[in-house]
Amino acid sequence: MSSTIRLDPTRLASAYAQVRSLTEALAAPLGPEDQCVQSMPDTSPTKWHLAHTSWFFETFVLDGPGYVRYREGWDFLFNSYYQTVGTMHARPRRGLLSRPTVPEILAYRRAVDARVVAALPSLPADKRALVELGLHHEQQHQELILTDIKHVLSCNPLAPAYRDPGREAHPAEAPALRWVEDPGGLVELGRDQGASADAFGFDNEGPRHKRWLEPFALASRLVTCAEYLAFMNDDGYARPELWLSEGWDVILREGWRAPSYWRPPEPGEAWTVFTLDGVRELDLAAPVCHLSYYEADAFARWSGARLPSEAEWEQVAGELEVAGNLLPTSPKALARASLHPEAARASADSSGLAQLFGDVWEWTASPYSPYPGYRPPPGAVGEYNGKFMCNQMVLRGGSCATPANHVRPGYRNFFAAPSRWQFSGLRLAKDL
Amino acid sequence: MSSTIRLDPTRLASAYAQVRSLTEALAAPLGPEDQCVQSMPDTSPTKWHLAHTSWFFETFVLDGPGYVRYREGWDFLFNSYYQTVGTMHARPRRGLLSRPTVPEILAYRRAVDARVVAALPSLPADKRALVELGLHHEQQHQELILTDIKHVLSCNPLAPAYRDPGREAHPAEAPALRWVEDPGGLVELGRDQGASADAFGFDNEGPRHKRWLEPFALASRLVTCAEYLAFMNDDGYARPELWLSEGWDVILREGWRAPSYWRPPEPGEAWTVFTLDGVRELDLAAPVCHLSYYEADAFARWSGARLPSEAEWEQVAGELEVAGNLLPTSPKALARASLHPEAARASADSSGLAQLFGDVWEWTASPYSPYPGYRPPPGAVGEYNGKFMCNQMVLRGGSCATPANHVRPGYRNFFAAPSRWQFSGLRLAKDL
Amino acid sequence: MSSTIRLDPTRLASAYAQVRSLTEALAAPLGPEDQCVQSMPDTSPTKWHLAHTSWFFETFVLDGPGYVRYREGWDFLFNSYYQTVGTMHARPRRGLLSRPTVPEILAYRRAVDARVVAALPSLPADKRALVELGLHHEQQHQELILTDIKHVLSCNPLAPAYRDPGREAHPAEAPALRWVEDPGGLVELGRDQGASADAFGFDNEGPRHKRWLEPFALASRLVTCAEYLAFMNDDGYARPELWLSEGWDVILREGWRAPSYWRPPEPGEAWTVFTLDGVRELDLAAPVCHLSYYEADAFARWSGARLPSEAEWEQVAGELEVAGNLLPTSPKALARASLHPEAARASADSSGLAQLFGDVWEWTASPYSPYPGYRPPPGAVGEYNGKFMCNQMVLRGGSCATPANHVRPGYRNFFAAPSRWQFSGLRLAKDL
Amino acid sequence: MSSTIRLDPTRLASAYAQVRSLTEALAAPLGPEDQCVQSMPDTSPTKWHLAHTSWFFETFVLDGPGYVRYREGWDFLFNSYYQTVGTMHARPRRGLLSRPTVPEILAYRRAVDARVVAALPSLPADKRALVELGLHHEQQHQELILTDIKHVLSCNPLAPAYRDPGREAHPAEAPALRWVEDPGGLVELGRDQGASADAFGFDNEGPRHKRWLEPFALASRLVTCAEYLAFMNDDGYARPELWLSEGWDVILREGWRAPSYWRPPEPGEAWTVFTLDGVRELDLAAPVCHLSYYEADAFARWSGARLPSEAEWEQVAGELEVAGNLLPTSPKALARASLHPEAARASADSSGLAQLFGDVWEWTASPYSPYPGYRPPPGAVGEYNGKFMCNQMVLRGGSCATPANHVRPGYRNFFAAPSRWQFSGLRLAKDL
Repeated sequence: MSSTIRLDPTRLASAYAQVRSLTEALAAPLGPEDQCVQSMPDTSPTKWHLAHTSWFFETFVLDGPGYVRYREGWDFLFNSYYQTVGTMHARPRRGLLSRPTVPEILAYRRAVDARVVAALPSLPADKRALVELGLHHEQQHQELILTDIKHVLSCNPLAPAYRDPGREAHPAEAPALRWVEDPGGLVELGRDQGASADAFGFDNEGPRHKRWLEPFALASRLVTCAEYLAFMNDDGYARPELWLSEGWDVILREGWRAPSYWRPPEPGEAWTVFTLDGVRELDLAAPVCHLSYYEADAFARWSGARLPSEAEWEQVAGELEVAGNLLPTSPKALARASLHPEAARASADSSGLAQLFGDVWEWTASPYSPYPGYRPPPGAVGEYNGKFMCNQMVLRGGSCATPANHVRPGYRNFFAAPSRWQFSGLRLAKDL
Repeated sequence: MSSTIRLDPTRLASAYAQVRSLTEALAAPLGPEDQCVQSMPDTSPTKWHLAHTSWFFETFVLDGPGYVRYREGWDFLFNSYYQTVGTMHARPRRGLLSRPTVPEILAYRRAVDARVVAALPSLPADKRALVELGLHHEQQHQELILTDIKHVLSCNPLAPAYRDPGREAHPAEAPALRWVEDPGGLVELGRDQGASADAFGFDNEGPRHKRWLEPFALASRLVTCAEYLAFMNDDGYARPELWLSEGWDVILREGWRAPSYWRPPEPGEAWTVFTLDGVRELDLAAPVCHLSYYEADAFARWSGARLPSEAEWEQVAGELEVAGNLLPTSPKALARASLHPEAARASADSSGLAQLFGDVWEWTASPYSPYPGYRPPPGAVGEYNGKFMCNQMVLRGGSCATPANHVRPGYRNFFAAPSRWQFSGLRLAKDL
Repeated sequence: MSSTIRLDPTRLASAYAQVRSLTEALAAPLGPEDQCVQSMPDTSPTKWHLAHTSWFFETFVLDGPGYVRYREGWDFLFNSYYQTVGTMHARPRRGLLSRPTVPEILAYRRAVDARVVAALPSLPADKRALVELGLHHEQQHQELILTDIKHVLSCNPLAPAYRDPGREAHPAEAPALRWVEDPGGLVELGRDQGASADAFGFDNEGPRHKRWLEPFALASRLVTCAEYLAFMNDDGYARPELWLSEGWDVILREGWRAPSYWRPPEPGEAWTVFTLDGVRELDLAAPVCHLSYYEADAFARWSGARLPSEAEWEQVAGELEVAGNLLPTSPKALARASLHPEAARASADSSGLAQLFGDVWEWTASPYSPYPGYRPPPGAVGEYNGKFMCNQMVLRGGSCATPANHVRPGYRNFFAAPSRWQFSGLRLAKDL
Repeated sequence: MSSTIRLDPTRLASAYAQVRSLTEALAAPLGPEDQCVQSMPDTSPTKWHLAHTSWFFETFVLDGPGYVRYREGWDFLFNSYYQTVGTMHARPRRGLLSRPTVPEILAYRRAVDARVVAALPSLPADKRALVELGLHHEQQHQELILTDIKHVLSCNPLAPAYRDPGREAHPAEAPALRWVEDPGGLVELGRDQGASADAFGFDNEGPRHKRWLEPFALASRLVTCAEYLAFMNDDGYARPELWLSEGWDVILREGWRAPSYWRPPEPGEAWTVFTLDGVRELDLAAPVCHLSYYEADAFARWSGARLPSEAEWEQVAGELEVAGNLLPTSPKALARASLHPEAARASADSSGLAQLFGDVWEWTASPYSPYPGYRPPPGAVGEYNGKFMCNQMVLRGGSCATPANHVRPGYRNFFAAPSRWQFSGLRLAKDL
C-alpha cells in the first residue's frame, strides 16, 4: 500500500474515528478522580493523555495562519516535550491540573474531532501525513493510559481494579523452551523511508541498512514467572556478580526483591500480583512482566544465556505476521482484552516462535541509537524520536496493552533501564 | 455556660448538623478532580478532609467493642497522625488516592452522620466531649479546605477561581496606624481546664498561669499591602541584616521576592494577587497576607518595631468580643463570605484596636511551647496538640477563612516558620 | 570587675596569648589530613576553625582604612556567616579547601597575633571590646574543634582516636537521684548590659528581666547511661506516644535506636561508645550524651518528668560557682582533660546539685528567643547571636569540651533540635 | 610479542617499578591536605588512589592461603567496587578518611612493592597476568589522579595550581579542517583474546568481530575552542533543537553555558580557563575539552556533522602508531608534560589525521556495549569492565593525562554522558 493510498482522506477519516473512539473507551471505566492523578513523574493523568493527543492534532494539523486555538493557555498545558513549538507545563506537575475537568477535555476532543474531520478532505499531503502520525502517536498514549493508571491504582492501599474482572484467568502450562537458530551473516534491517513507503513507520525505524550477525538462537517463548521465581529463590537479588553495576545500585536503593506489582505471600500461600483486574494469584506459566532492564539482564546472565540484540530479534521476526495477545482496536472488542500477559500456547506457529508479538515488550541488549544514515525530519515533529537516543534500551514486539495494528516487526520501543511500569519482560538468546 | 450545658445532646446535635453541613458547602463549588489534588505535602485533597473529619468521629466516638467500621481499610487511609490508634497512609501520598471517590466519601459522611446522630442521646459525657472536640477539629479542616484548595488552584497556569467572584472588592483607605499601650505587669493568661469550664478550648490553651509583661504597645491595625510594598521597594528582600539567618537561607533558596500569591506586574501596571475569587488587582489598603514568619519578622525589624509575643496579644485581646472578617458558619451565609483580608474600617471599636479577629492570622514572636503545668490528655486525643510543640510559631486571631464561632482570644494556632499558604500576616508591637 | 579593668590592654594581652595558644594545642594531635576534613555541613575542618578565628580578629579588630589584608581572597574563605561584611564560601564546601595548608594557616595565625599584640596598647575601648569578644568567640570554636573532629574520626571505619588514651576511665557508681526544690515566684534573670558590666557576657544573655516561675524541682544530677539504657530497653525508640511528632519522623528517617556514637554490642557483650580516646566500654554511671533534643524530651516524658526551662535552670544555678568536668584552659593542663562526661561524685556541693557545669550541655525546654528588651548591637557583630533566634533550643551549663573560664550561669547555648554531635545530655525537672 | 614474553618476570619487574614510581611522582606536588579531599562522588582523593592501586596488587596477586594483610581493615577502605571480594567503604565517603595518612599510605606502597617484587620470580603465569593487569589498572588511576585533583583544586576560590607552570603555553594557529574519507564495507575490529595475544588489552576490547560500515569521513583534527566559541556565540546553549532531550534537561538544571573550567570574561577581556597550571587565557586553537557527551553531540549537530561511531574511529586508527600529546611515562620526563590539550601541528602524519591519540578523549556516538561473543573473565577481575556496560558512552584515543604506553587504537574508555571532569572533547564525522 503506497502512501498515496495510506493517506487517502476517506481511509484516514475512518482510521481517525476508530483510534479516537478507542482512546475514550479506554478512559471510560475511570472516574474523574482516577483521571486526574499522577503517581510519579513518568506517568501522566488519564485526562492529560486525552487532552495531549488532541493538542497534537490541533498544533500540527489545524494550527496555522488565521487559526484560533480552542482555548487560550491550553497549548502550554498540553505540550509534552516539543520545545520548538513553545514552553510547557513541567512534566512532574501534570497531576496538579484539576482544571480543565474531564468533561471539558472531552468537549475539547469533540471540537478537535469536528475540525479535523471537516478539514481532512482538503488537507495537503504533508498535513495528512501528520494526521497519520497523530494517530500512531495517539495509539502510543492508549498504551500509556493503561500502564499509567495501573501504576496509579497500585499506589492505593485499597488496590482497586481498573475494570471488573469479567474475564477469568485460565492458568495453563507453559510449553518447554526450545532454541530457534539463525545463521546470521550480512543482513538488511530497518525500513526504507521514501515517500513511497508502503506502510507507516516512525522515523527511527529506518533507514534500511546492512548489519553483520554471528550465528545465534532465540528462545521459542518468553521467560515465565515460574522461571523468574527460580531465579529469585536462587538468591538472584542478592548476588552482585549477576548484576550490572548500575542495576545493583538501583536494587539496593529501591529494595527490589521481585518484579513490580508482585506481592509477597503470607507463609504457606502463593505470590499474588496486582493487575488491571485487581489482585490475583500469580500465574506461573505466564510471562514474567514489569521488569527493569537490569532484572532482565541479570536473569539472562543467571540462566547462562543473554538478551538478544534488536537486530537479532528483527532478523527473526521480520517476515512474520503480527498476531498475539495485543490490545483490540475496536471499542466493542475491549471487553475481550486480556490486559495481562498469558501463557504461551503449546503449538507455536510455523516459525517455531511463540509470543513474539504482544504479551510483553521484550528488552533487548541494544541501546537505543540511530541507524546509520538516520536523520530526524525537519521541524517540530523531528523531536518525536531522535532526541531520546541516549541512555535508553530498545524493546521489541508490543505488549498486551499495545493496540494490535500499532506494532510491527521493525517497531523500536525504548525505555530507560530502571523503568518497570511498562509491560516489559524478556526472551532469551544465545550465541551458536 | 458549663460543660453540662455545652455537652447537652440536643445542643450538640444542632452544632453537629451545622458544622457538618458547612464543610460540605465549602466543598460544593469544587469538582471531583479539584477535590483529589494534593499540591504539596502540607496540603491535603478536599475529599481527604471530607473523609478524615468523618474518620475522627468514627474512630473516637463510634468505634468500640462490637462496632463494625464503615469500610475495611479506610481507617488506614484517613488517619492523619494519630500514631496510637494505628499506622496510616503517608501524608505526601494523599493525592494518589483516586478512590474512594467523592460520591463514595459523601456517602461515608451520610453514614457517619446517621450513626452519630442516632448515638448522641445515649452517649456518655466523655464521648460527648469527643463529639464536641470533633466539631472543633472539623472547623479547623474547614479552614484548611479553603487554604489548601487555594494553593492547588494557584499551581494551575490557568489560575482558576474557587468560586465566581460574586462579591466585588471595594478598595478602601486604611486608617492611620496608632499605638495602643498596655502597662503590662504580672498578668494571668490561658484558661482553666477543669470539667466546669464554661466554654470549649483546646488543651493547649491552658492551664491559666501568671506571666510578667513589660510595658508595651500594639499597633491599632494590621500591616497593609502598601506598607509591605514599601519594604519591598526599600530592597527588603536583598538586605541580610533584616533577616533571621534561617529566613535568609530560605528566601535565597526559594527565590522569594514578594508574599505568596502576589504576581509581579508588567511594566507600568499594578501588582495582582491570586485569590479564591481568581486573580485581581492588589488592594493596597488590605492587610498583607500569606507571609512566612521570616518575612513578618524581617518587616517588623525594617519598620523599627517587633512582633508581639502571644502573651501581649492575649493580654490585649482577652476581654474583647470576637468579631471581624471571619468565615460565616451557616452555609446560606457563605455567599457573603469575603474569603480575603480587607482594609480596616476607619472607626475601630472602643479598644482602639481593629482587625484583632479575622482577616489574617497574626504571627507572634512566641515559639509554640506548653504553658506551665500543661499536660496532654490521656489517650489518642492527647496527640492533638502537645506533640507539635517544637519548631512552630504561634499565630493569633483567626483569618477570613476561620469559622466565626471557632476562634477565641486564647486560641493558639501554630505553623512552621516557612509556611505561607495560610492567611498569615502581622501586627506590629513595640516596647514602651 | 568593671569593663575598664576587663579591657585593660595588659590583661587582654595575657588572655589573648592564653586563648590563642590553647586553640593550637587542641589542634596539635591532628595531622594535616585530619584538619582538612568536613564530615557534614554542621562541622568544619580544624584548619578552618584555626583560620576563621584569626579572620575574626583581622576583620573586626585590625581591618580599617589603610589596612592591608594578610592574603587576598582569604576574607571570602574564612567568613562564617557575617553577611554584612561580605559574601562567603558556602559552608558545606569548607572541606574542599585543601589550600591554604595547615602550615600556611599557622603562619597566618602568627601574623595576626603579631599585629594584634602590636596594636593592643593603643586600641580604643570599642576595639578592645572586640578583642575580648574575639576571645570568647575563639573559645566557642575550641569546643567545636573537639566536637567536629570527634564526628570526623567517627566516620572512619578504623575509628581512630583523637589522642592516645593516657587517662583511663574509672567507672564509678552514680549517686541516687534527689529532687532539689525551688519555690519560684517573680524572679530576675539575665544580666545587665551597660558599659559598666563587671564581667563579659554575650548580648543574648541580657537584659536583666523579670519572670514568674511556678514552684519546681531539679534533679540533683544528670541522667546516666544506665537510666537511658532502661528507656531503650523499655522500647523507648518504638513508642510514638513518647515523642514529639517531629522527633518521631526524625528517628524513623535516620534509624536512630541509641545515642550518637553508641555502638551496639555483640550478643553477650556490653555496649561500647566512640570517644575522643577511641572506642571504649560504655560507663553506665556516666551522664548520657550526644542526644538530640527529641531524645532528651522523649526520655523525660518516659520517666514521668520533664525538661527544665532555661529560667528554672538559671534560677537555681545563678549564684553558684562554676566548677566541674570542663576543658582546662592551659595547654599544659590539656593532658589532664577528661574529654568525656564522667559519673557524678557522691558528695554534691552545698546546693545539693551535681554536674550543673561541665560534663554535658543540658537541653532545656526553652526555645531560643530574645529576652524582653533585647536589641542586637549595631554593625556586623550584631549578627553574632540574634539572627539565630528561631527553631533552636537553649542548652545550659557547658560540657567537658567547654573551656572552664568560658561558661557562666547565664550562658545560653543553642542548637537545632536534631543536633547530636555536641556533648548534649539532660537533667530532669518537675512541677511541685 | 607473545604473552610469554610480556609476562616474563624480569620485564614485568621493570614495568612494575616504572609504573609505581610514576604514580608517586604524580602525587608529589601535592600536600597531605590536597591528597585527602574528595570534591564529588565521581572523584577520589589522591591518597585513596595511592592506596587502592596497592590494594589491587595485595588482593589479587599477594593474597591467598597463609597471607597476612598489611593492615586489618584496610581491605574494606580501599576496595573500589569488587563486590565479589567483599564489602567496601561507600564511594562518596572516601574524602572522610583522614587516616591512614599520606605517609602511612606511602609506607603501605613500600611494603606491597617489596612483597610483589619478592614474589614475582616464582609467581605462576595467571598471577603474573594479574600483575600486568594491575599495572594497566594503575595507569588508569594515574590519569584519574590528575583529573580528580584538577576538579578538587578548581573548587577552591583561590584556584591554586597543581604545579608551577614551568611550561608556557605557545598559542598556535589550528590547521584548516579537512575530511579524511573511508569506504567502509565489511571490516574486522577488536582484538583476539587468546593466551597467545601479542599485546595486552582489556577484556572489553575483544573479541575480534565483523562489522559493516557505510562510507564515511572523519575530520582531520579535533574541534577547537574557537569553533566551540562560535557555537556558544550562536546561542548553542539556548536552542533546544540542537540537544538530546536528556542533555537539555541537564544544561538547564546545571546552568551550563560553557565547557567545564571555562571562566567567563569581564567585558572586553578574553575567556580564561582553569588548568593544572592554574588559570590562563583560553587558547583558541587548542582542542575544546571538558565537554559532556551532550555538549559534544549538540556541537556536532549544530555544525551539520555528527560524532563518529567507535567502529569508524577504530577502522581509521587501527593501524596507526600511538603518538601525540600524552603523559610521559618516566617520572623524570614529567616536567615536560603538557597536561593540557594543544593546538594541532599544521603537518599531520601520512594518514592525514592529527591528534588521534592524546590531547583529549574523543566522545563517540557508540554506547558502551559488549562486542559480539564477549564474555567477562571468571572471578573478581571479571568485574573490571563488563558490569559497566549500560548507560555509558565510549571515548577513544587517550588524552594529555593518559600515560603514553597505556592507550592503543582498540582501547575503549567509557563515561556517563553528563561527565565533564575528564579531558573529553570531540572530532567530527559525516556520512559520504
